[in-house]
Amino acid sequence: MTEDLSKRQKKSVGLSGVIAGNTSLCTVGHSGNDLHYRGYDILYLAMHCEFEEVAFLLLYGELPNQQELSDYKQRLKGLRNLDPVLKSVLEQLPSTAHPMDVMRTAVSTMGTCTPEQEPFTIEANRALADKIIACLPSILLYWYHFSHNNCRIELESDEDSVGGHFLYLLHGRSPDKLFLKSMHQSLILYAEHEFNASTFTSRVITGTGADLYAALTGGIAALSGKKHGGANEVSFEIQNRYKSADEAEEDIRQRIGRKEIIIGFGHPVYTIADPRNQVIKEIARELSLSQSKMQMYEIAERLESVLWDIKRLFPNLDWYSSVAYHMMGIPTAMFTPLFVLSRASGWMAHIMEQRADGKIIRPGANYTGPEIRSFIQIKDRS
Amino acid sequence: MTEDLSKRQKKSVGLSGVIAGNTSLCTVGHSGNDLHYRGYDILYLAMHCEFEEVAFLLLYGELPNQQELSDYKQRLKGLRNLDPVLKSVLEQLPSTAHPMDVMRTAVSTMGTCTPEQEPFTIEANRALADKIIACLPSILLYWYHFSHNNCRIELESDEDSVGGHFLYLLHGRSPDKLFLKSMHQSLILYAEHEFNASTFTSRVITGTGADLYAALTGGIAALSGKKHGGANEVSFEIQNRYKSADEAEEDIRQRIGRKEIIIGFGHPVYTIADPRNQVIKEIARELSLSQSKMQMYEIAERLESVLWDIKRLFPNLDWYSSVAYHMMGIPTAMFTPLFVLSRASGWMAHIMEQRADGKIIRPGANYTGPEIRSFIQIKDRS
Repeated sequence: MTEDLSKRQKKSVGLSGVIAGNTSLCTVGHSGNDLHYRGYDILYLAMHCEFEEVAFLLLYGELPNQQELSDYKQRLKGLRNLDPVLKSVLEQLPSTAHPMDVMRTAVSTMGTCTPEQEPFTIEANRALADKIIACLPSILLYWYHFSHNNCRIELESDEDSVGGHFLYLLHGRSPDKLFLKSMHQSLILYAEHEFNASTFTSRVITGTGADLYAALTGGIAALSGKKHGGANEVSFEIQNRYKSADEAEEDIRQRIGRKEIIIGFGHPVYTIADPRNQVIKEIARELSLSQSKMQMYEIAERLESVLWDIKRLFPNLDWYSSVAYHMMGIPTAMFTPLFVLSRASGWMAHIMEQRADGKIIRPGANYTGPEIRSFIQIKDRS
Repeated sequence: MTEDLSKRQKKSVGLSGVIAGNTSLCTVGHSGNDLHYRGYDILYLAMHCEFEEVAFLLLYGELPNQQELSDYKQRLKGLRNLDPVLKSVLEQLPSTAHPMDVMRTAVSTMGTCTPEQEPFTIEANRALADKIIACLPSILLYWYHFSHNNCRIELESDEDSVGGHFLYLLHGRSPDKLFLKSMHQSLILYAEHEFNASTFTSRVITGTGADLYAALTGGIAALSGKKHGGANEVSFEIQNRYKSADEAEEDIRQRIGRKEIIIGFGHPVYTIADPRNQVIKEIARELSLSQSKMQMYEIAERLESVLWDIKRLFPNLDWYSSVAYHMMGIPTAMFTPLFVLSRASGWMAHIMEQRADGKIIRPGANYTGPEIRSFIQIKDRS
């Protein structure tokens, strides 16, 4: 039964298994359900690294030593403020906007203020990558507090990490150790995933010679879809629908009977399990325990069992991310933007690779339209 | 020699010849150098249609009759005003910005104001496509006049076409017949081109379930690259570099000797000629004659001969577009945005196709990075 389902699922993936280019950044599922960033197993990275170590690995090629990490974090810390034009644009955007659309608009706006200058060098690329990684939490929270609370927040903080800075700007106070660790781990899991749809979008845009803002804007656009990054938000909506695990199980069994697709399960590449699940599940469990709120976790876990029992479907990274983020008091609409904060590092590493490669990406299509037909003047059309 | 060069060129195209999906919109080069939109030869469409007829063909499936065309143009005419939020965002963007980056930011901003609501229906898609096609000239010129002349222009005009409205807003007066005809023809040539990089970008984004604004924002981002839509701007820079055809020839021969790539020539799909060239070349010639300024046209034509003689390279659509647009008094930085005004119709037709298809697009990659390696704790890194 597993095999059939996995085949059925792959059918709904375009270009599945087709090689679209080279990368030295990542392997996904090379032995069934493993994930490596530049040769390092994701489980070690998630257990032992800070997010900035992993971003450095992706963007600079090797894991940093203590001094390099410290310099890197210091550099990011100094780049968190936003251009006045960007602030004024963020102030125009409605509070009802989805934060993903806000972030997409903000990165695009950055490109209108300080466009990249050719030639695109590796050094300039990395400097811009640093700037963008540093700014993304500021963008999200500046807009959020202005549009929701009519307040222009300060964008500096003493927090020395991307996740810490995000939580500080969100809650107005320094996060505790468990929150910080959870943020590092979840951002590491989200940082990179080979030629997923948003990364591939960034590479297609880069292939035309467009600049890094263009490529990144497209990456955010692609990530917003609910079959991609948007899945962690939809996962929350599912888990939050129920008052108990029993109720959840009963309803989901009915939905599966009606052939409804349950977001948060299965994957276009992994067939057995998502290796990131064990890490994010443990984070979700610890956070739930620390808050003494186990209901959502129990619902998520029960549905994991049900989906496996009935359909041999496994949860992907998004399924327990929603539990973890909710337990940290993060608004649901910011779940996918957190994915952006992290994946931006992977996107920009891929953009640099695609630039070095120099190819435009231009596939062909299978034509299914009308045969060649004679033109009819407008006066003769019925 | 021709064959070798065409092979060499294809090597620099990723996914060249790989089928990435179905389309009923367009065939490119099925008999060497022809182009059809929904079965109609581009040469007939360009000669006999208005741009709006072709946009209607792409978005609604068939060429409109007189009444349908009239209704469609009337509808577009009524949709040209911009949301106040969008206007206020455009007012923040610097005059130094590239208009492509402005348009990308503007479409992204529209998505923050009036996001699409699921379910995405064909009817709602078409209504939104109408709105966007109607607004694009307004976006470009509202920003342009505000940032350059500190002036908030009126966005209504009596012009009944996209090209006419654009020229009216740019010059503040109604265009003459030759300008109008030239605009219709050039926009028709630019409207659609199968799975080119920007259209493919829009389809990859759509495949994730992201909304139409997201997909369109990505399309504009991809089009800005100089190997894609940006080529018409670079073509102008080349043609404008010289004072005479003789000087141009001498310099370009030297550049070819140095293996420099000349933008505006060759194509990822066509191998013999670009069928659109004959149409845009005649437009460029007529406009140059009408202005009694033949120098730029002569330079362009001489370089066409030189590139063919030496490298069997043919001009693509962008090469004479730049001459034509320059003769209409259009600022160079608006050449690629004009491509957007037109191609938006093709993009949105493809977005609707991809939605109906329902697939996420997720290719694989060839891994070229380090083998699996052991994790080293930060304190032990050199």
